[in-house]
Amino acid sequence: MARSRDALDDPGRAEAFSDGVFAIAITLIVLEIGVPHVESDQSLWSALGKQWPSYAAYVVSFLVIGIVWANHHTLFSYIARVDRTLLFLNLLILLTVALIPWPTSLVADYLDTGGSQAKVAVAVYSMVNVAMAATFSLFWWYVVRRAPHLLHDDVDRAAASASLHRFSLGLLVYPLTVLLAFVVPIATMAVHGVIAVYYAFNQLSIPRSGAAPAEETA
Amino acid sequence: MARSRDALDDPGRAEAFSDGVFAIAITLIVLEIGVPHVESDQSLWSALGKQWPSYAAYVVSFLVIGIVWANHHTLFSYIARVDRTLLFLNLLILLTVALIPWPTSLVADYLDTGGSQAKVAVAVYSMVNVAMAATFSLFWWYVVRRAPHLLHDDVDRAAASASLHRFSLGLLVYPLTVLLAFVVPIATMAVHGVIAVYYAFNQLSIPRSGAAPAEETA
Amino acid sequence: MARSRDALDDPGRAEAFSDGVFAIAITLIVLEIGVPHVESDQSLWSALGKQWPSYAAYVVSFLVIGIVWANHHTLFSYIARVDRTLLFLNLLILLTVALIPWPTSLVADYLDTGGSQAKVAVAVYSMVNVAMAATFSLFWWYVVRRAPHLLHDDVDRAAASASLHRFSLGLLVYPLTVLLAFVVPIATMAVHGVIAVYYAFNQLSIPRSGAAPAEETA
Amino acid sequence: MARSRDALDDPGRAEAFSDGVFAIAITLIVLEIGVPHVESDQSLWSALGKQWPSYAAYVVSFLVIGIVWANHHTLFSYIARVDRTLLFLNLLILLTVALIPWPTSLVADYLDTGGSQAKVAVAVYSMVNVAMAATFSLFWWYVVRRAPHLLHDDVDRAAASASLHRFSLGLLVYPLTVLLAFVVPIATMAVHGVIAVYYAFNQLSIPRSGAAPAEETA
Repeated sequence: MARSRDALDDPGRAEAFSDGVFAIAITLIVLEIGVPHVESDQSLWSALGKQWPSYAAYVVSFLVIGIVWANHHTLFSYIARVDRTLLFLNLLILLTVALIPWPTSLVADYLDTGGSQAKVAVAVYSMVNVAMAATFSLFWWYVVRRAPHLLHDDVDRAAASASLHRFSLGLLVYPLTVLLAFVVPIATMAVHGVIAVYYAFNQLSIPRSGAAPAEETA
Repeated sequence: MARSRDALDDPGRAEAFSDGVFAIAITLIVLEIGVPHVESDQSLWSALGKQWPSYAAYVVSFLVIGIVWANHHTLFSYIARVDRTLLFLNLLILLTVALIPWPTSLVADYLDTGGSQAKVAVAVYSMVNVAMAATFSLFWWYVVRRAPHLLHDDVDRAAASASLHRFSLGLLVYPLTVLLAFVVPIATMAVHGVIAVYYAFNQLSIPRSGAAPAEETA
Repeated sequence: MARSRDALDDPGRAEAFSDGVFAIAITLIVLEIGVPHVESDQSLWSALGKQWPSYAAYVVSFLVIGIVWANHHTLFSYIARVDRTLLFLNLLILLTVALIPWPTSLVADYLDTGGSQAKVAVAVYSMVNVAMAATFSLFWWYVVRRAPHLLHDDVDRAAASASLHRFSLGLLVYPLTVLLAFVVPIATMAVHGVIAVYYAFNQLSIPRSGAAPAEETA
Repeated sequence: MARSRDALDDPGRAEAFSDGVFAIAITLIVLEIGVPHVESDQSLWSALGKQWPSYAAYVVSFLVIGIVWANHHTLFSYIARVDRTLLFLNLLILLTVALIPWPTSLVADYLDTGGSQAKVAVAVYSMVNVAMAATFSLFWWYVVRRAPHLLHDDVDRAAASASLHRFSLGLLVYPLTVLLAFVVPIATMAVHGVIAVYYAFNQLSIPRSGAAPAEETA
């Protein structure tokens, strides 16, 4: 009756692999914070201070990836088994997550240029977030509309289906940050940070039947 | 009866280690996408657009590693225990997988050069894929022909043995991409992407006896 | 009764994700040790010797992250379930841990400059350690004072609450290393190493009721 | 009776953390293989060929870390619980393992210089291997001589203690590669590869009582 841990439809290894990608992407972004080169008569404090876009980009991207990880965790908590389509859609999510160190570097390099380059950099940053939101929506749409048998038995099907609207909301909000980037690029980065923190405390929650508090987990 | 989790022939830790290598390799390829350096009067959009080979190489390599991970997962799902030879052959697979960020960088740098250099870069990319396919074939050949006792008891031995032909097919197809690289390098990269997506939905499947659907996995 | 491995309040995945970030951060610091470029008539030994700040920074940061990982492990061993606030506070801990490769590079580049730059570099290094200690204290304060129901049932509540004082002690000691950096920067790095080793053998320990020795762990 | 997964003396999390460090270190070494920069009228093949020390260093270090991982796995399979000293000694092992990408880069840069620099580079590479062997010996010495209660009950204490001689042998062989580096640096790198492959098929094996073959692992 009990199948091996390696069963093809077990979400465990897909989740562990995803966790690895999230953990690596979130840790790689530190590489964009460079060490300034100053001459022996120059102030290192001053040179470090000029790097503020790097620190800002690091904090925002760290929060974004961290909270996206938590959301990914939440989605997988509703999933009892995976099929090949779902594995592929999960791979598309990871493709956008693993990309984030790149727009982070872009923002770190151009946020303080003042001109159109800062706007372009932040717009690209926002576009990667749009792509990430889109892959998440596609993933969840597939589960609740096309393959609800992949959900745990105790997950309320109707509520799961209804939760898609919340994702659609995200698909409206994120494109706005692309537009906002062309108006106030620095503030747009702050908005990304705020959205991340908001999602940290307002994650997707779907009613489950008969789940008792767990003391021990295997 | 139950042995400790750390039993020497337990495939679990080998699989977890492999997953780590796959997750890191797939996340490291983003490092090849550089941030263009433009003067304050130059267009960042334009500079970003010129980097298209980097984006293409990123997407293709991400799909390749992601699908190879899924195939690796599938192969291990048939394996109940490992011996030292298998651990070593698995290490050879990982050696080729972890190498992929390098030909990816090579392609990113030379794909738009037009001349023979693009051809060489894509040919090297294809050769690494050949090496990866070869190590996978060697691994699977060893399991089904030399050490079938490593398979789960419910795996159909005859079907497992027959599945080797499919791998042999891969060993015919991949070398063709090396040749194709010298004719149409850019299209060859697209072919690598298409092969990856094809394998995503057509993974190796071997009949197993008496496996019931699993609701919960430990 | 038994819930799935993916239960939302299960600390397991948060812990695994944290472990990933710790493991990656600790392994990334090696990237700051550069390979010196010497002409064919120059001594490689001599050039390698001049890189001593890189080796020192590597060893100290490796010990710091390694012992912080062990402390994180210890804290989580008292926690039976997580809520969203705790996940967020854990993310703040990881934000400071994943940052460490950066001040490590800074120290590696400036520790042997002798002047004020070495002091600034080590002061920044110490400040990141202060931030790390602060996020740990915030995390533990939240658990024992605001959400003690997240603790395992066998953990002594009074002892857990009292353990906060020890964390407060850390918040007094680490800021002193910032000041010390302006006096004896090199010795301050040694102090960071000594503090790490001290904590390796004097981790937080809270009485638990009725815990029998475990032979096998799942 | 059953304790939580997070028990302080559970080797599981230490092992998982170690696996992460091994997996990251083994995947990071690919970063030392650079992409050659050639003008549009130069041969990319030729430039790639000149990078042979990078490929050689990659393969040897990949095998070294991979087999060291397997040995680490084997050692931990005998360990039922860990104490703080063991966690610290394990950290020292990881410190030397995570360092390997650096001497690998050093060898990649200097192996083809012909003169004394190649000898120095390979000697440093060998010295890091000596350090790694020393930390492994220290770890195992502590377990079998000072803290045998950390071993699984079914492990033959006498055989475990006797196995230390094999480690002592390693401590004789590795220093010889430091000396050999000054005579034939390139051949010394080959020797490192051969030693790794030898250990792949001749790992430490200690008799255990009453262990039945395991079909399924949790």
